[in-house]
Amino acid sequence: MAESNLSPGADAVRRYLIGLQASITGAIAEIDGTPFLSDAWQKEPGETLQGQGITKILEGGPVFERAGCGFSQVRGPKLPPSATQHRPELAGAPFEAMGVSLVFHPRNPFVPTVHMNVRMLAAKGKAGKEVCWFGGGMDLTPFYGFEEDAVHFHATCKEALTSFGDDKYPRFKTWCDEYFYLKHRSEQRGVGGIFFDDFSELGFDDSLAMLKSVGDSFLKAYLPIVERRKNTVYGERERAFQLYRRGRYVEFNLVWDRGTHFGLQSGGRTESILLSMPPMVSWSYQNVPAPGTPEAALYSQFLVRKDWV
Amino acid sequence: MAESNLSPGADAVRRYLIGLQASITGAIAEIDGTPFLSDAWQKEPGETLQGQGITKILEGGPVFERAGCGFSQVRGPKLPPSATQHRPELAGAPFEAMGVSLVFHPRNPFVPTVHMNVRMLAAKGKAGKEVCWFGGGMDLTPFYGFEEDAVHFHATCKEALTSFGDDKYPRFKTWCDEYFYLKHRSEQRGVGGIFFDDFSELGFDDSLAMLKSVGDSFLKAYLPIVERRKNTVYGERERAFQLYRRGRYVEFNLVWDRGTHFGLQSGGRTESILLSMPPMVSWSYQNVPAPGTPEAALYSQFLVRKDWV
Repeated sequence: MAESNLSPGADAVRRYLIGLQASITGAIAEIDGTPFLSDAWQKEPGETLQGQGITKILEGGPVFERAGCGFSQVRGPKLPPSATQHRPELAGAPFEAMGVSLVFHPRNPFVPTVHMNVRMLAAKGKAGKEVCWFGGGMDLTPFYGFEEDAVHFHATCKEALTSFGDDKYPRFKTWCDEYFYLKHRSEQRGVGGIFFDDFSELGFDDSLAMLKSVGDSFLKAYLPIVERRKNTVYGERERAFQLYRRGRYVEFNLVWDRGTHFGLQSGGRTESILLSMPPMVSWSYQNVPAPGTPEAALYSQFLVRKDWV
Repeated sequence: MAESNLSPGADAVRRYLIGLQASITGAIAEIDGTPFLSDAWQKEPGETLQGQGITKILEGGPVFERAGCGFSQVRGPKLPPSATQHRPELAGAPFEAMGVSLVFHPRNPFVPTVHMNVRMLAAKGKAGKEVCWFGGGMDLTPFYGFEEDAVHFHATCKEALTSFGDDKYPRFKTWCDEYFYLKHRSEQRGVGGIFFDDFSELGFDDSLAMLKSVGDSFLKAYLPIVERRKNTVYGERERAFQLYRRGRYVEFNLVWDRGTHFGLQSGGRTESILLSMPPMVSWSYQNVPAPGTPEAALYSQFLVRKDWV
């Protein structure tokens, strides 16, 4: 599947995505001092979904307890419902999807968890016309909130989008707040960032340029925060709160996330989709922090919709 | 809501369920030496779903790391889609649901996790006719498999159903295998048990008698297994495998379980619905046990559909 059937521009996107995965995992491996395991996989002939990918994962490092970054390129006979909520005319159309998706779970509770995804979808509609769109974004999930981290992350996201129109950051920031929301908890997943989907309004070339700008900004947005927080001293209390809060990440991804459902519904590769799961998580009943604590401040000052820049 | 609007038999069911919750948690508290925390709750007026419940939970005990057992009785204006897959004529009808649901996560990896649920639903269809049905079952999820445990559990389930017709155990056993199946892993959740839903074929009285027989059999099915295994010596290896396998429980409940989706979709009480979550869980990439180990035997000999009795 080096050649794409559905989109003539797909090869350039593929090369970009593989390079992005390499540069991000390279930087993370360096900061951690641990190499990523690299696992190239291919769907068996005869499976509903055809395709291949490269899963890169670092587990048990001193800085990152679990950091997964996957590239995948899959092709299927029928777009699943989760992908066509906003494009009903393409329901059941043959499709091709490729993207890079990552979730990094740091060990130190003062370093936030982060997620980034850039992807392209191409589908052939009933009239035989090919439709191609992009999606992606990044968002930050702290356990202990620091305003300067949230501001830096958002400012970097905003800068990545500036040359594509002033409307993009505010739209995608709001979209992110709406998307990464745990309805069953009435709670934001974290301090947000940017999120977009079904994006093709700038035409193929400029929409792709925007996607690349987002992907290329990820390390600028996240690494300074890791460097700043990774040596902060913590104890059992902070560790326990981190493990508890990671449960929200699991709840969001398994209950609400469209990408996870798309993957699991369409017969994607489970171990690659669930790279996003934390290495260690806990649940406990009615775990509500005492007023005035930093844990309480996370809920009241950070897990809320706010203009950070 | 002591009086039920929808079903004249609901009060008797309610009394049975509250007694069942008390007897099960009493026995578990005794074996653990730790009392359950009992939390009576009520939905706020104005919320979509009205109702109340009693959540009982034991956390951090020597035998049970997390044992949750909830009674709830809720009433809503519109049955959610997850409840009407098999009764499309009742889609969106006002309903009342009550039940007892439990998941016990033992500390010792040689003691299996267990789930039991008994419930009644009543709904008023378009013609104004009230429809009432029952659902429930119990299933066992070992980390280390023992044939005698699986046989005992299934034999007790079978016995509970015998006087309600010879077809019940085989039907509900198969239903359980089909229901507690992780499609994205091609894996059974455990060694199964029994599961039934939309059940009213014996008429109200006998269907309720069957429900009670299932509820009343739970301790007989599970306690002897706990007693037999709770003092087995284990080490880090068994603990690590237990934490990893608990991830499957989370995946099943959050991705596939109809009851969990029903609860979260219908605005149920999140902390009570998520009583089923384990106290501590881990995920790791491509965790496949070496051939010939007891961990490999779990997959090949226990997480498969098999006639245990």
